[in-house]
Amino acid sequence: MRNGGCLKRTHGCGELSLSLAGLEVVLMGWVHKRRDHGGIIFVDLRDRTGIVQVVFSPDIDEVAFVRAEPVRAEYVLAIRGVVRKRPEGTENPNMATGEIEVAAREIVILNVARALPFYPTEAANVDEALRLRYRYIDLRRPASWRVFSLRHQAALVIRKFLTTHDFLEVETPLLTRSTPEGARDYLVPSRVNPGSFYALPQSPQLFKQLLMIAGFERYFQFARCFRDEDLRADRQPEFTQLDIEMSFVEERDIRNLTEEMLVDLFREVLGVELKRPFPCLTYAEARKRYGTDKPDLRFNMELVDVSSLAGKSSCRVFADAVERGGVVKGIRVPEAGSFSRKMLDELSKLAVSWGARGLAWFALEENGVRSPLAKLFRPPELETLIGMMGGRTGDLLLFIADRQEVAEEVLGRLRLQLADRLGLVDNRQFSFVWITEFPLLEYNEDEKRYEAVHHPFTSPRDEDLHLLESHPERVRAKAYDLVLNGTEIGGGSIRNHRRDLQEQLFQVIGLPKEEAEEKFGFLLDALDYGAPPHGGIAFGFDRLLMLMLHLETIRDVIAFPKTQSATCLMTEAPAPVAPKQLQELHIKCLPALTDQSVKSCRQLDS
Amino acid sequence: MRNGGCLKRTHGCGELSLSLAGLEVVLMGWVHKRRDHGGIIFVDLRDRTGIVQVVFSPDIDEVAFVRAEPVRAEYVLAIRGVVRKRPEGTENPNMATGEIEVAAREIVILNVARALPFYPTEAANVDEALRLRYRYIDLRRPASWRVFSLRHQAALVIRKFLTTHDFLEVETPLLTRSTPEGARDYLVPSRVNPGSFYALPQSPQLFKQLLMIAGFERYFQFARCFRDEDLRADRQPEFTQLDIEMSFVEERDIRNLTEEMLVDLFREVLGVELKRPFPCLTYAEARKRYGTDKPDLRFNMELVDVSSLAGKSSCRVFADAVERGGVVKGIRVPEAGSFSRKMLDELSKLAVSWGARGLAWFALEENGVRSPLAKLFRPPELETLIGMMGGRTGDLLLFIADRQEVAEEVLGRLRLQLADRLGLVDNRQFSFVWITEFPLLEYNEDEKRYEAVHHPFTSPRDEDLHLLESHPERVRAKAYDLVLNGTEIGGGSIRNHRRDLQEQLFQVIGLPKEEAEEKFGFLLDALDYGAPPHGGIAFGFDRLLMLMLHLETIRDVIAFPKTQSATCLMTEAPAPVAPKQLQELHIKCLPALTDQSVKSCRQLDS
Repeated sequence: MRNGGCLKRTHGCGELSLSLAGLEVVLMGWVHKRRDHGGIIFVDLRDRTGIVQVVFSPDIDEVAFVRAEPVRAEYVLAIRGVVRKRPEGTENPNMATGEIEVAAREIVILNVARALPFYPTEAANVDEALRLRYRYIDLRRPASWRVFSLRHQAALVIRKFLTTHDFLEVETPLLTRSTPEGARDYLVPSRVNPGSFYALPQSPQLFKQLLMIAGFERYFQFARCFRDEDLRADRQPEFTQLDIEMSFVEERDIRNLTEEMLVDLFREVLGVELKRPFPCLTYAEARKRYGTDKPDLRFNMELVDVSSLAGKSSCRVFADAVERGGVVKGIRVPEAGSFSRKMLDELSKLAVSWGARGLAWFALEENGVRSPLAKLFRPPELETLIGMMGGRTGDLLLFIADRQEVAEEVLGRLRLQLADRLGLVDNRQFSFVWITEFPLLEYNEDEKRYEAVHHPFTSPRDEDLHLLESHPERVRAKAYDLVLNGTEIGGGSIRNHRRDLQEQLFQVIGLPKEEAEEKFGFLLDALDYGAPPHGGIAFGFDRLLMLMLHLETIRDVIAFPKTQSATCLMTEAPAPVAPKQLQELHIKCLPALTDQSVKSCRQLDS
Repeated sequence: MRNGGCLKRTHGCGELSLSLAGLEVVLMGWVHKRRDHGGIIFVDLRDRTGIVQVVFSPDIDEVAFVRAEPVRAEYVLAIRGVVRKRPEGTENPNMATGEIEVAAREIVILNVARALPFYPTEAANVDEALRLRYRYIDLRRPASWRVFSLRHQAALVIRKFLTTHDFLEVETPLLTRSTPEGARDYLVPSRVNPGSFYALPQSPQLFKQLLMIAGFERYFQFARCFRDEDLRADRQPEFTQLDIEMSFVEERDIRNLTEEMLVDLFREVLGVELKRPFPCLTYAEARKRYGTDKPDLRFNMELVDVSSLAGKSSCRVFADAVERGGVVKGIRVPEAGSFSRKMLDELSKLAVSWGARGLAWFALEENGVRSPLAKLFRPPELETLIGMMGGRTGDLLLFIADRQEVAEEVLGRLRLQLADRLGLVDNRQFSFVWITEFPLLEYNEDEKRYEAVHHPFTSPRDEDLHLLESHPERVRAKAYDLVLNGTEIGGGSIRNHRRDLQEQLFQVIGLPKEEAEEKFGFLLDALDYGAPPHGGIAFGFDRLLMLMLHLETIRDVIAFPKTQSATCLMTEAPAPVAPKQLQELHIKCLPALTDQSVKSCRQLDS
């Protein structure tokens, strides 16, 4: 009886329909709902395929009816019965199988269920912590079933596409070596080599480059990656990366292939037809026009530079900013001219909290311009300013007068905030954009050195090579990101395939020759032994799925996600371990330190 | 020029043939060989697709000829040239493209190569440590390319098969919780939760069971698994497991599905047609007939129990063994009757080194039986003994008189040894066998308790449930292994889906209720909230591939394998890390301990 006796499942609950009326079927599944009505027991039985109503009554089978009595929600049942049309007037048009029911002749209770902490039907309204603790109940929601089904399909479609394009999936190690650049590593103490540690990979970067040097030419992998960073809504300590690398290619080859792959993916999985080629902005242009390197192009509201006018204007705040070498930039917020003073003050506060010295606003009303600054401008100036912004009656114009980076960054954030608030974003749209020509290096004020914007294996653009020693910050990289709806979903680059250039780059980022040799010697060697030109790209697969499915958090597309403090509420990992285990690994735990003492340790160390 | 200038690859080297004669092509690849002959430079250019001969001569192009001069082995080149038939008499029938060559009009050196530590053509004869250190050179061998190409295909075929059978691939966490049963865990210290550790999974066992409880019904995953054990030739610290779980099934459903999957795999990837159903032996029968639970059925040489005769025989060694409750078992080694005394003494030594008290041998020669024991038997006894063994002239009969386990184990090992030595094994054959009805528990003499033979979530067989308290060692499990050519490639079981039974089992294996609750409370809870009957199987994917490809070591099917001391010779992982990293993780390294002090720590702890 334990496994359903001699009953053998014949159908899924959701597979039954009127055309099967009269057929005897065996179903197995969960009690979704149970109710008694007029001496009859109705059970909505649920499995992967759907839900169907099962009827127990003494008229159909006395024994089955009696045995069905103790059944409660989420019991696991095997049912033998006959499909029949529901009595006239009791059909349920909201249910896929609502025309029929199953008259039960036999029931086997495969397992009982205690009262659940919550029921799948209620999960949407339950606190997320409780849902994560009982994730196996949460996952019983049909909606979550759809998510993982699509995730599975998406991976299949991508694998098929890349296989057709001569790519080979190769698995690279997870127990690997800690490297000094990048995020914080998760470490794994070695038992066999006391004092030594593996690191879990932040990405298979070096291995995929080595596969190119090994002559694999086209590689991909759905690779698990790990970053021990403080988490945000769309980050997890472990995540899945679709990792791609190719030899003998240029930037545009990789971008083209990727676009084709995504077109295929969206068509096959969502039935959505993406337009190619995807638009493409340089990093400089994206910052200038949208104040960010991840612009959301589902709406306009571009940043406009009005410095030429502002610098000569009678408004001192504007003129001074330009005089000091800064800029005055603005956005036109359509139909926000009616914002109240309170709302505008809040916007100003927001801008200040993001680093601006202030926010200038001009509400273009029927009767004229409402603004604390309006009287500081000569009327023709004001008119020209409004003209430059394309302002129309009913609009709100916002300006920041500041250093260029600050003005762009803050306006970029205001742009997003306002588009969201004003409902300018079409949530069904998928808007891709490539960002190219990233700077290769940026100066790290804390560490007093240049560091790689992408990673130190990225190739500089040929035409900027001459600037590498003299103006490192002006060198652009052969690097590109793909942005979807304002979120970076992928990024990649052409790599350095020559040892001399790679060594020079390590030097520019202040990595001493010995340390470079110690940590990356195997890569430098490999570049010496016949390394082809190569490059690639990597996508955050979880994040891509989250956006494809219009979900709010990356946790919704991961079967067993962790919280923002990197714990699993279900298994309670991480957890203390037996002292013996630590002894075998030649480590011991330190007494927990206060933040202050951690800081001083760090200083001591650096 | 760095990326090949304006040259755009048109063909793979191996794709060229006589039908393309006259066509101008652009190739990119590695210099496999280079030679000068009569003022002409010949380069064998290699890429993923194959090798083709490229000719540089002043007659074809003066500039290209001069530029080709410095080219050496493993340089990376781009070549523009015209396909042409080779001059009469210079064809190379050993080369797929041996009828043609490419007359080079342009050459771009994409990268130079220093003298390599070894060349791909020599790799087969190079020390494995050197090959692993320069794995990217080793992987340039066409043979290794074929391995990873087949590995990729194999995973695709399996994914397609399982998808067609309604399975969903779901990724489960790698940062999870250490569990007390099983092998040694790799641990990952938590930065956010001082004193706590994640464990890397030895398998996704609990997660796949939770997915069944979540109603996924059919799950699979190519899962990375980790075991911190001392390594053997076919073990790696991290390996890939094809993990499968199903709900509402019995043992035979899982075995059937698995067989269909393997038939499909061998057909699609190797063109080999496997016969179904696979043979099936109970654990008891396998031990009895082959002395092992992983019998190699590519040859016979079954163990024969002659205790009935031996117990009554005049040979005291035999009779005593039976009297003491032991057995006398033998194997017939065909055509080994001519083994010299020296060879037979060596076999005896081997048997003793494996734990037997001695080995009795009888060489059936033309002129009679050669054996030190022959004269201890009455002639009719000897004849019956030979008859029971099916002995024929020319055969060698080997016997062990000992406790049953010892006799079977040692004869099982002798059987393998001799089959190998006598060339009885057809290496092209694939011989599968299921082993079923494993014991659920075995007694651990060291820890003075029963422990699970498979894992503690395995279900006992219904008919043995009544023995669980009284004779735990006699309870058989709903567990099964799949053995290929004498190697276990997969194993699985039906799981306990009821809390009461699972709790009882934890008790039988001596896991205190509180510890069970602390470590596995989430599973016990889940069993209470609607757990369906379920079971599954897992395959060692690396090992399966190794056997499919007739390779000697599992390292040959892993792109970047580790050595038997769990190190990566290429990246030199594991390695020491910065003190700051350890501080952030709230751990410190202990001074290395001697083996002795580790042992006393262990005792202290347990």
